[in-house]
Amino acid sequence: MVVVAACQIPAVIGSNDHGHLVAAVREAAARGAGLVVLPELAVCGYAFRTAAEARAAAQDLDGPTVTLLRALSRELGVVLVCGFAELGADGEVYNAAVLVEDGGVRLRYRKAHLWGREPEFFRAGDRSPTVVDTAVGRVSVMICYDLEFPEWVRLAAVAGADVLAVPANWPLDPRPAGERAIEVVKAQAAAGTNRVHVVVADRCGEERGVQWIGGSLVCADTGYLLTGPATTTGTPARPTVLTAELDPVTARDKSLGPHNNALHDRRLELYDPTT
Amino acid sequence: MVVVAACQIPAVIGSNDHGHLVAAVREAAARGAGLVVLPELAVCGYAFRTAAEARAAAQDLDGPTVTLLRALSRELGVVLVCGFAELGADGEVYNAAVLVEDGGVRLRYRKAHLWGREPEFFRAGDRSPTVVDTAVGRVSVMICYDLEFPEWVRLAAVAGADVLAVPANWPLDPRPAGERAIEVVKAQAAAGTNRVHVVVADRCGEERGVQWIGGSLVCADTGYLLTGPATTTGTPARPTVLTAELDPVTARDKSLGPHNNALHDRRLELYDPTT
Repeated sequence: MVVVAACQIPAVIGSNDHGHLVAAVREAAARGAGLVVLPELAVCGYAFRTAAEARAAAQDLDGPTVTLLRALSRELGVVLVCGFAELGADGEVYNAAVLVEDGGVRLRYRKAHLWGREPEFFRAGDRSPTVVDTAVGRVSVMICYDLEFPEWVRLAAVAGADVLAVPANWPLDPRPAGERAIEVVKAQAAAGTNRVHVVVADRCGEERGVQWIGGSLVCADTGYLLTGPATTTGTPARPTVLTAELDPVTARDKSLGPHNNALHDRRLELYDPTT
Repeated sequence: MVVVAACQIPAVIGSNDHGHLVAAVREAAARGAGLVVLPELAVCGYAFRTAAEARAAAQDLDGPTVTLLRALSRELGVVLVCGFAELGADGEVYNAAVLVEDGGVRLRYRKAHLWGREPEFFRAGDRSPTVVDTAVGRVSVMICYDLEFPEWVRLAAVAGADVLAVPANWPLDPRPAGERAIEVVKAQAAAGTNRVHVVVADRCGEERGVQWIGGSLVCADTGYLLTGPATTTGTPARPTVLTAELDPVTARDKSLGPHNNALHDRRLELYDPTT
C-alpha cells in the first residue's frame, strides 16, 4: 500500500515563490506520502497575458523549480510530480510536468491538449503518455485538459500505468447545486473505465480574476473516490493537502467481474481512428 | 425542446408479457414525451440460463415486440427505442435494439460489447453506431456495456448524434455509501466529453437472483443530469418513468468555452489505434 497526496496550492504569477510548494510537499511527506502530486504550472501561475510573460516564467530542467523538486525528492524519499513552464532545448515554451524520484528527473511530459488561450503561450506536446516504474508503482503523467480525452487516458492504461498523476488548473464554472464538477466526474470515469488510480492536484487562489474548482482528488481504480474533491461547493478553492492510501498493483488486474476485462473487451477492429 | 423519457420496467423471462412496456410507453406519451427509451431485452428478460433459452426468446423484426412498438409509435406519435433478443436473418441471436418512428423501423442496432455470460447466448454486433434523423433530433443507439467504451461513444458523437438512447440492464454491485454507481458516472462523462445528450433506460425487478441498479437517467450534453438516477440507493430498483426536457440541437455545438471544441481538440494523429 502507498499513501498518495494531492497538494492544492496557490501560485502568484511572477513571484517565483516556492514557499507553498515546499510547505505542501513537507506536509504530505510528514503524513507518509510516497507519491506527491502538485498542480499544473504550480509555481509560475497560469493566467498569463502574453507569450512574453509565459516565456519569462519558463525554465529548463536545470531551472530553480526542477532543481528544488529534485532536492526535496531525495531529502524526503518521495516521488514528486509537478507542473511547470518548460523552456525546451528547441527554444519553445511548453506546459510541462516532471516526475522526480531520488534526486533525479525520471520523466518529463508536455501537455498535448491545450486549453483556452494556452496556444498563445505554449507549444503542444506531441508525445503520448509514458509510464515510469517507481518505488510507488508504475506512474504516468498527464496535465489537466489531457485527462478529458478518453483516448489519451487509454494510452496510459495500455502502457501499463498503475497511477495517473495529473497536475491540473481547473477553472471554476457554474454547475448545478450539489453536483460535482464535470471535471471530477470525468476523472472518476477515466479511472473506472481503465482500472487505473487517478490523483489530481488542482490549483487554488484567485489569479487575475480566475477562480479554480479546487477539485483535487484521489480516485481508486474502481472509479470511486478515496478522497476529495477537496472543494465541494462552487466557492473559490482553498489550499489543502489530501492524502489517501491505495494499492497500485490492483490496477494491473483489468478484470470487471469473472467474464470481462476493461482492456480486452475493446473492439479495436471496429474503432476507426481516422474519424 | 423535446421531452424524453426513460422507462425503468421489469421483465419476466419466458412470460412474453408486454404489459409493463405498453403501460410505460403510454405514461411517457401522456407526459408529453417525443422520445421514449426502454431497457435492454425489455420484455424477454436478461438472465438466461442456456443458449437454447435465449434463442427461444428471440424474434425477428416481424416478431411481436417490434410489431407492437411500431403500432405504439404510430398511435402515440413517439419515437421508441427498445432492446430485444433478435433472431437475425443469418440464424444468429443478437442482443439488439430498434428505433421505431411513425410505424416503421428506422434503425436496428446490435450490441457490440458483450457483458458477463452474454457470449454464450448472443453473437456480438460488428457495426459501429449510426445516427437516425428523427422528429426529435438525431438519435444514436447503443446498449448497456457499449456505453462504457469511450471509443464507441466517440463514434456516435462524430457520426452526429444529438441524443444517445441507451437501453441497459445494469446489475447491482456494492458501492460506497452515498455514491452514484460508476455506470452513472460513466454515462455523465460520456455526455460531457462528447457534448451529446444521453438517455439510459435501466431495468428493475429481480430476475433469477439478479438485482439491478435502476440507474435510469437523462443527462444533458453538459454532462450534468437532468433527471435520475432513478434509484439512488443500493436497494433493488423500482419501476418508474423518468422524463426531462432538452434541446437536441445544443449537442451540435461542440464548443467548450470560446477557445475549445470537444471534437476538434482531439489529437487524432497521436492516438494509436493498434494498441
